[in-house]
Amino acid sequence: MNILYVYAHPNPESLNHLLKQQAADLFTAENIEVSYSDLYSDHFNAVASWHDFSSEMQQLQYMLAQQKAYEENKLTTDIKSEIKKITAANHIILQFPLWWFSTPAILKGWLDRVLVKGFAYDTGKIFDAGLLKGKTASLTVTTQSSESAYQIQGVHHATIDTFLHHIQHTLRFTGIEMLPPYVIYGAVDAERKKKEYKDYLRNIIS
Amino acid sequence: MNILYVYAHPNPESLNHLLKQQAADLFTAENIEVSYSDLYSDHFNAVASWHDFSSEMQQLQYMLAQQKAYEENKLTTDIKSEIKKITAANHIILQFPLWWFSTPAILKGWLDRVLVKGFAYDTGKIFDAGLLKGKTASLTVTTQSSESAYQIQGVHHATIDTFLHHIQHTLRFTGIEMLPPYVIYGAVDAERKKKEYKDYLRNIIS
Repeated sequence: MNILYVYAHPNPESLNHLLKQQAADLFTAENIEVSYSDLYSDHFNAVASWHDFSSEMQQLQYMLAQQKAYEENKLTTDIKSEIKKITAANHIILQFPLWWFSTPAILKGWLDRVLVKGFAYDTGKIFDAGLLKGKTASLTVTTQSSESAYQIQGVHHATIDTFLHHIQHTLRFTGIEMLPPYVIYGAVDAERKKKEYKDYLRNIIS
Repeated sequence: MNILYVYAHPNPESLNHLLKQQAADLFTAENIEVSYSDLYSDHFNAVASWHDFSSEMQQLQYMLAQQKAYEENKLTTDIKSEIKKITAANHIILQFPLWWFSTPAILKGWLDRVLVKGFAYDTGKIFDAGLLKGKTASLTVTTQSSESAYQIQGVHHATIDTFLHHIQHTLRFTGIEMLPPYVIYGAVDAERKKKEYKDYLRNIIS
């Protein structure tokens, strides 16, 4: 088993950081091969643009320019490095706080820049025929609101699944199978969650 | 009427750019007051972090640090400038290409960094009681896939509303009322869309 752990939280004092540390301890204890993309600490560039490849692709649509750059080995080093990690991984974990009912921008930028046409999907090669078929992924998410807010009857009039859908749909589009997410709602007892998260991860790696 | 037009597309040769130009021409012709936030051309910083305010807020959660910085007038100039534009606006238009079923990261970063607690919402001051109540907003969106893909029976098994929901929910959370979006699916005749988009905008400003 080879895991890619993509982590997007700015605060090393956070519950998110603690969870990531717990995951790392477990993977070490269980001898699981794992790569980390700690987007904040790596100062990952969030903004997809023509700086991602050579200037001669200037006039193409960004997505088509990405594909051409991938095929001609002209993507920037940071993108190539993420592509290499995804290629090696059997399972990808995205861990992030839910900000405005989605990922933090830095993680959205990772999806925008790294899931390149020609690498992750292609014309007619999406979903069940996606180029990343065979891999699995899961989301580890913390929310500000309590669990009661994420109910049809709650303040958001929807469960968390509604808000995670566009992220899971993105990964599914490339052929990746989504495992159930791990969600921590509101403020919680961090010590209790440490154990619970390890049990959750054990299910993924077993 | 005062409009804030937030625009997130990297390519000045794009259909998106053409649409923005059409909007600008219409607003000029109709004497509508409008501010533009052209996120790519402004090199808007997409990544929420402690660089957004003074270092003494280091240990707080990002959202709480935002609120404190807002109250103490310690937000960075770029964020203060956007807050000023939102304050002045009656209507906010977000124009973007749908990338991975959401906004480009640079626009997500605008939401993350600018919709500050204490300014846009507060404890108990959300949705109908949100601090931006009285304003309206709308989304102008282009998609790669055709309209037939965005159907329950289509390849995405959902309409575009499903994917725009988390963005609209974000603005609604602050009390903003969402007007119907303007969506251009797939490749289209740009000339035809120019007129259609102007008609759509006329409904907003009338």
